[in-house]
Amino acid sequence: MTRDSIRKYAHAAVRAGTLCLTLTGGALVEAAEHSPLIIKDQGSLIAGGGLITQPGRFDPYKPMMPDGQTYHGDHVYAFYQVPVDAHPLPIVMWHGAGQSAKSWETTADGREGFQNIFLRRGFSTYLIDQPRRGDAGRSLVETTIKPVPDEQLWFNQFRIGLWPEPFEGSQFPRGPQALEQFFRSMTPNTGPYDIEVASNGVSALLDKTGPAILFTHSQGGGPGWMTAIKSQQVRGIVSFEPGSSFVFPEGEVPAPIPSAFDTLSAQVVSKAQFEALTHIPILIIYGDNIPDKPVRLPAQDSWRARLEMARLWRDTVNRHGGDVRLIHLPEIGIRGNSHFPFSDLNNVEIADLVSQFLAEKNLD
Amino acid sequence: MTRDSIRKYAHAAVRAGTLCLTLTGGALVEAAEHSPLIIKDQGSLIAGGGLITQPGRFDPYKPMMPDGQTYHGDHVYAFYQVPVDAHPLPIVMWHGAGQSAKSWETTADGREGFQNIFLRRGFSTYLIDQPRRGDAGRSLVETTIKPVPDEQLWFNQFRIGLWPEPFEGSQFPRGPQALEQFFRSMTPNTGPYDIEVASNGVSALLDKTGPAILFTHSQGGGPGWMTAIKSQQVRGIVSFEPGSSFVFPEGEVPAPIPSAFDTLSAQVVSKAQFEALTHIPILIIYGDNIPDKPVRLPAQDSWRARLEMARLWRDTVNRHGGDVRLIHLPEIGIRGNSHFPFSDLNNVEIADLVSQFLAEKNLD
Repeated sequence: MTRDSIRKYAHAAVRAGTLCLTLTGGALVEAAEHSPLIIKDQGSLIAGGGLITQPGRFDPYKPMMPDGQTYHGDHVYAFYQVPVDAHPLPIVMWHGAGQSAKSWETTADGREGFQNIFLRRGFSTYLIDQPRRGDAGRSLVETTIKPVPDEQLWFNQFRIGLWPEPFEGSQFPRGPQALEQFFRSMTPNTGPYDIEVASNGVSALLDKTGPAILFTHSQGGGPGWMTAIKSQQVRGIVSFEPGSSFVFPEGEVPAPIPSAFDTLSAQVVSKAQFEALTHIPILIIYGDNIPDKPVRLPAQDSWRARLEMARLWRDTVNRHGGDVRLIHLPEIGIRGNSHFPFSDLNNVEIADLVSQFLAEKNLD
Repeated sequence: MTRDSIRKYAHAAVRAGTLCLTLTGGALVEAAEHSPLIIKDQGSLIAGGGLITQPGRFDPYKPMMPDGQTYHGDHVYAFYQVPVDAHPLPIVMWHGAGQSAKSWETTADGREGFQNIFLRRGFSTYLIDQPRRGDAGRSLVETTIKPVPDEQLWFNQFRIGLWPEPFEGSQFPRGPQALEQFFRSMTPNTGPYDIEVASNGVSALLDKTGPAILFTHSQGGGPGWMTAIKSQQVRGIVSFEPGSSFVFPEGEVPAPIPSAFDTLSAQVVSKAQFEALTHIPILIIYGDNIPDKPVRLPAQDSWRARLEMARLWRDTVNRHGGDVRLIHLPEIGIRGNSHFPFSDLNNVEIADLVSQFLAEKNLD
């Protein structure tokens, strides 16, 4: 880039600035979604994890023998971007089961994901691959990965629709190309899923980032709660469709909730651990097409049970002085969202809901 | 970000522009390495890959049965960034064995990698996870991943030094923290390594990007040559320490080169396939601490054999009218480079060499 072209661009940016995100009477207006991103710093880092050391002595003439060699694994990977004039708290974005940092990048139909949207709104972002996933692939425990066809399961389970038909009015991106991009964004565990390993990794990342907001999705919800228990750095959580591992204090654990999919058990933590969750604002968001009453279809009924457990959890945290808000989107008139509200067709509207919450809780 | 803060930044960018990358009498000067990056567009996409379809009919009441379900895999993942006023050709950056897109991001000691450096120089970048690696983890072939300690092997093999001592004058980032970041940046294959699958994936990516420059590293070198054979979109290649899979035309295949590590065989392609490699400029870069003559230590001797094969390959391509330049860095006075010249301590100097090549070949 020549100095002339930078100068030319910078003047354009002044003009674009007049179109950019503005806060007008409390309403967020995203007027220039595609003005350039102005990034002060970006890169990646790795945090946490453990180490295996093989007994014996390394022989450089027999390098394929493990004797005396080491193996680092179970760490978390994060790609970070810091916009100019960033808000004090970065957002750590944590994917769900079978997903990766890609969850928050470009949507399956090529629109901007929460990475770009929240960068434009002035937040630093950390997109992670949790321990034993994606670019954080070295696991201290062996695993076998089998290509067992399962995508129709996920189509239903993620409430895109009832295979092969999307739900009427679905906000999930339409068409075979988007569906293919979505299916190909899934990526396997490279070691057994372990909520302790996952939350230890992200806690170690937060030691490096300092105080931060967590966005979690689905399976990431559970280790997200555990991270807020383990780390002093979590200042707020926005959890999209947490799917399991709701943690309750000893003596207040609700009965398991049976469904046609599974029986959803609550997890128990000490009262002292639970206490941590009562000190931070938490927003939980669920999408549409979750039945009110038991139904026979496993994919559908699983979410009835999960939403029910989430409400019990909200009530328990709030009874202990906490600040959990649960938004079931259809109840506020936002219809058609799948399991991925942050990348659905209306993800800017969802981002506005999140921004309002962050502003209200002084997290921006 | 408020409109005022954007305006304030944009004026700062005008001033920063006067300090930024300038071309003065042929010498590249990077004066303001940490001015903001001005990114017109960024995101991720997935390309290529195959599909398994299980015979039978999907039963939504038995979703764990694979019958009638699909499984997409063997695609490539890419994270892209387009700076304002980008050069016409993007750079596709392709990692080596056990690595991922992280290779090109922040270095192990926290400096900027080739992603940021070449964005600052006006190139769009595509950082890939090749098929069966990282965020492109779904493989159509099963694999088992075992945590077998091997890091001392890699320390020697990647010519950081002779474990536990770095080479004197090494350009590899120093200290235990950098070494830990490096070890943790390794990530496993999630399916068997397959040069055809890898090159098919990147060829499909190039169908989406259009004409591009390939940067390849180590194991990525071989599928890089195959990609240039398969795709019309490769306009030039910069290959860092290609480690195997040098392709020769039928009838001109050199004898295997034995070393204390392995016996390095050349690969054979048809004359028509080989022809593609004679139509694009290619730069190959090898670092330091490669012995001239056979030595007993496998890690060292392997690179003697690889450099010897690379020279035979250069001569063969050039004999057919091609344009391959091989730079063995110590021969031009640049000493101490490891297997990772693009993230070594002198990576800006290495980037300058690459930029000079790209300018000379009209690829910028």
